[in-house]
Amino acid sequence: MLQKNILKTIHKYDLISPLDRVLIGVSGGPDSLALLYLLNDLKVKLGISIIVAHLNHGIRGRASDSDERFVRDTADKLGLDFISRKIDWRPRHKHPSEEALRKLRYDFLSDAAKKYRINKIALAHNLDDQAETVLMRLIRGTGLYGLISILPKRRVGSFFIIRPLLEASRLDIERYLRKIRAKARVDKTNLEDNFLRNKIRHGILKELEKINPNIKGTLARFSQQAVIDYDYLRENAKQFLKSGSGSAVKIDLRKFNSSHMALQRMALRLILEGMAGDLRTFTNKHWEEIQDLAANRPLGSIVHLTKEILARKGKGYLLISSRKHKIKP
Amino acid sequence: MLQKNILKTIHKYDLISPLDRVLIGVSGGPDSLALLYLLNDLKVKLGISIIVAHLNHGIRGRASDSDERFVRDTADKLGLDFISRKIDWRPRHKHPSEEALRKLRYDFLSDAAKKYRINKIALAHNLDDQAETVLMRLIRGTGLYGLISILPKRRVGSFFIIRPLLEASRLDIERYLRKIRAKARVDKTNLEDNFLRNKIRHGILKELEKINPNIKGTLARFSQQAVIDYDYLRENAKQFLKSGSGSAVKIDLRKFNSSHMALQRMALRLILEGMAGDLRTFTNKHWEEIQDLAANRPLGSIVHLTKEILARKGKGYLLISSRKHKIKP
Repeated sequence: MLQKNILKTIHKYDLISPLDRVLIGVSGGPDSLALLYLLNDLKVKLGISIIVAHLNHGIRGRASDSDERFVRDTADKLGLDFISRKIDWRPRHKHPSEEALRKLRYDFLSDAAKKYRINKIALAHNLDDQAETVLMRLIRGTGLYGLISILPKRRVGSFFIIRPLLEASRLDIERYLRKIRAKARVDKTNLEDNFLRNKIRHGILKELEKINPNIKGTLARFSQQAVIDYDYLRENAKQFLKSGSGSAVKIDLRKFNSSHMALQRMALRLILEGMAGDLRTFTNKHWEEIQDLAANRPLGSIVHLTKEILARKGKGYLLISSRKHKIKP
Repeated sequence: MLQKNILKTIHKYDLISPLDRVLIGVSGGPDSLALLYLLNDLKVKLGISIIVAHLNHGIRGRASDSDERFVRDTADKLGLDFISRKIDWRPRHKHPSEEALRKLRYDFLSDAAKKYRINKIALAHNLDDQAETVLMRLIRGTGLYGLISILPKRRVGSFFIIRPLLEASRLDIERYLRKIRAKARVDKTNLEDNFLRNKIRHGILKELEKINPNIKGTLARFSQQAVIDYDYLRENAKQFLKSGSGSAVKIDLRKFNSSHMALQRMALRLILEGMAGDLRTFTNKHWEEIQDLAANRPLGSIVHLTKEILARKGKGYLLISSRKHKIKP
């Protein structure tokens, strides 16, 4: 049943083609373990080759090393190539954010993809994850834009990130693992994000299920639609910026002021993203200030967008730059 | 404090200008009663004239008539003009949907606006309503698009709908009414929507507040942003359609297939809206069918979008029409 589900998703979103070289990110938890077994069973039928990748985030000390050994052994057992990277955390954070971990995981997978001529990176995001992520973003007020990270298929540079389990429920995944008698590792990491996720999983979602028994499917579908809508907005904002990003971006003031507010805001987001500013510190208040700057304030006025990035109103233009960047008048 | 809040909102969204003729929709409940007293207190300062409008929906029988009398008396007391309309429900529904009621209310206010040369219709939507509406739409899976109906200021034909209380909390409104010793009517209507709204208000939102104490503000802000983003998408879809709507709309197939999926879907929504089809029966499945029709199916294929509306693939075009519409080959 789960195999059918995954094949349907692969077909529907055109996730995999023959001769694909697929890197599977495997933490050792239930989702990624199921994904590994499923794709391994399908590899001949799909005509693909598989490499197993594991990031040893080292947060759980020895248990992290056991995770790595477990995934390595599983890959060995299946006769698959295995690669890993170990992170040394100690110097900085005790409890890295989910975002920081995601970045490390992404860097590792991206490097591996380049090194091993991989064209698809398969990740084990499932239906429940998607529903939970929607609620987390809503509760934190981080907006739907970030949902773009859980598309079923997304091009990233020279490869695609694919999520064949995106339409499978956690329940079906657990049932599948029991059926094939595979025992996954349990992630006991107590990240702050996991704390919120658990509250949502065991509290809020249960409450919502009383009102709409299919709430997870509803939220996942909603998320997919929002992702597509925001992708469109993002594409148009890219078009609007054209010249792209860098350490300083100049925007034509008249063009900015006559554009739709949605486009203005997304363009600004893209610029800040490009400058690697911390978008979490960019709030609605900043946004209102930028609009006021562009529309009303005198030449030379400045708005601080994040700790590092500021916007300055010039004659006929708006300049967004990092503090270090020299502003030529 | 509430007066300050309302003045800030009026200023921020440019809701009211001197000489405006403002029609206030007053049900007699706390929100609209507060809005009435507030705007009446501010009318000289703002330089506006006010008319009070009440729709007697008749659902609560005699209590509905008492509501009307109450609002009429309040208007009299304040020396304001009063207009009302009474709906005869019995023939059709016992429990009209919130949507049906909204439509009736809108028709009444719109007619009154035309008759009395009104340029602003003020409604009493508050911060809590907005947060609850976001959650309702999410739980039901009706998408964020519909949030467009709770913008602080929105042009509708020859007038604007304005919502001066949109950034005020229910708590502040109740506090204000106690302070001025005004007693509002209690709406005991037991609509299905009210049932869900109450579950959200007293259950889900309380749970969410434990995680984020400012969840209402967060959801309201989120909603405002989504509304702007969807407005942009809607504007672009209108542009895409150009020729507008009617009982049959022809879309260039090549143009449709080469457009972004977000634009395709919004264009379709606008067409269905224009044909007054019931969007509630338009699901994701229909949407997938339309895409398949446009991209893959043979000429002459038909997809039924709602009970009344179908899409047909012609040579180089897609025709959306109501069943009654004669299709010319």
